[in-house]
Amino acid sequence: MTRYRLTVEYDGAPFVGWQRQDNGATVQGAIEDAVFAFSGQRVEVAGAGRTDTGVHAEGQVAHIDLATDRFDAVTVMNAINAHLRPLPVAVVSASVASPDFHARFSAIWRSYRYVIVNRRAPLALDLGRAWSVLAPLDVAAMSAGAERLIGHHDFTSFRAVHCQSKSPMKTLDVLQVSRHGERIVVEARARSFLHHQVRNMVGTLRLVGEGKWQPDDVTAALKARDRVAAGPTAPADGLTLTAVGYPD
Amino acid sequence: MTRYRLTVEYDGAPFVGWQRQDNGATVQGAIEDAVFAFSGQRVEVAGAGRTDTGVHAEGQVAHIDLATDRFDAVTVMNAINAHLRPLPVAVVSASVASPDFHARFSAIWRSYRYVIVNRRAPLALDLGRAWSVLAPLDVAAMSAGAERLIGHHDFTSFRAVHCQSKSPMKTLDVLQVSRHGERIVVEARARSFLHHQVRNMVGTLRLVGEGKWQPDDVTAALKARDRVAAGPTAPADGLTLTAVGYPD
Repeated sequence: MTRYRLTVEYDGAPFVGWQRQDNGATVQGAIEDAVFAFSGQRVEVAGAGRTDTGVHAEGQVAHIDLATDRFDAVTVMNAINAHLRPLPVAVVSASVASPDFHARFSAIWRSYRYVIVNRRAPLALDLGRAWSVLAPLDVAAMSAGAERLIGHHDFTSFRAVHCQSKSPMKTLDVLQVSRHGERIVVEARARSFLHHQVRNMVGTLRLVGEGKWQPDDVTAALKARDRVAAGPTAPADGLTLTAVGYPD
Repeated sequence: MTRYRLTVEYDGAPFVGWQRQDNGATVQGAIEDAVFAFSGQRVEVAGAGRTDTGVHAEGQVAHIDLATDRFDAVTVMNAINAHLRPLPVAVVSASVASPDFHARFSAIWRSYRYVIVNRRAPLALDLGRAWSVLAPLDVAAMSAGAERLIGHHDFTSFRAVHCQSKSPMKTLDVLQVSRHGERIVVEARARSFLHHQVRNMVGTLRLVGEGKWQPDDVTAALKARDRVAAGPTAPADGLTLTAVGYPD
């Protein structure tokens, strides 16, 4: 038995998310089918982050076990990629991992990037890859609002109602807002996130950027521990899982 | 009569290029239809660069004439954008221009960016937006090759056979190659380009990057004044018209 660690890039648009389910194509299912096509083995692909419908990844991490030591990691990567065509999913790197390594449980941080295109014109090149916000946003105010969320908190106000996490307590290490011309980028990093946490934080920071909320309102929303106290959920299109960290 | 200058962004994938023609959807045709839908006027949209099938634009410039002075430029922009939905085309800025201004004939430079993704894995997030080159490319060698093309030359070797330009003489002001991780970016700027010139230069520089050609071979190809002497045409997917310059 050999365990392989895979770094995976995908466009989330044609998928109902990472996790295999009955109601549509998933990234996990696509990779499992590709592994079967080249190895004849039905494996379960364990992923570090269960991204939602329409959410993208540059650096999702997954692992698979194959009942052989015949394949080096590059062979596995190339074979999976050959069978993934023409789907917008690619294994961008692969390595042989220790049997202790687990893509999900060994991970010590996840990072996400959320992109807002802040202009009067609708999206063209960024369709499906960003949130179009027409009203001018104040990035300094958004940054001040973001600071209120950094640290160890009960994030119930930013958690999807159907979130399955046992505890709403999370430690948010990074929540940084920056402007690059008409693009506003929100970078978030934590050991783990609640369901929809990044999108709910971004939807809330938009209110601050528009001047409808003050940074103090973000603190109040956090303290309320009630989903209705925070802003709306930002659309999936703008979100990308950028990287996953491990102790190595 | 009022002349409006428009800056246009588009994803080239669903179009047979900028210029209106009978065999498929064009960007020019889409904008002309949108102008008609809101103004009732059949105008001709003049564009600065006639991009090919699949070529993208961030900063195409065009102008239209409307037989009215009723509309300010922002109104024209918003109205065209409303009627362009759901196509991946957007007018990103608009201004009232002098009757002397001509998007094509007043332009004094055009700039293009070509993106290569240089890795073993196929494209996923960059599908349709980059050229996938698997063999490692030497960017220093590509830069040395690119330098041989800068200046005033007969670019016959880099010109499509069906190019309609009267003269093959062009002045290439910028041809810069840089690496950003696995992305290689080629930036090109000139007063104007021959048909397929950027893609033919990039296809040639790839040969240099792979070590199949030396920079001296680029000079020899240029001097040959024969299309077969240069490298193959790089695919349209990687090419974007980034900006057009005017004397103002």
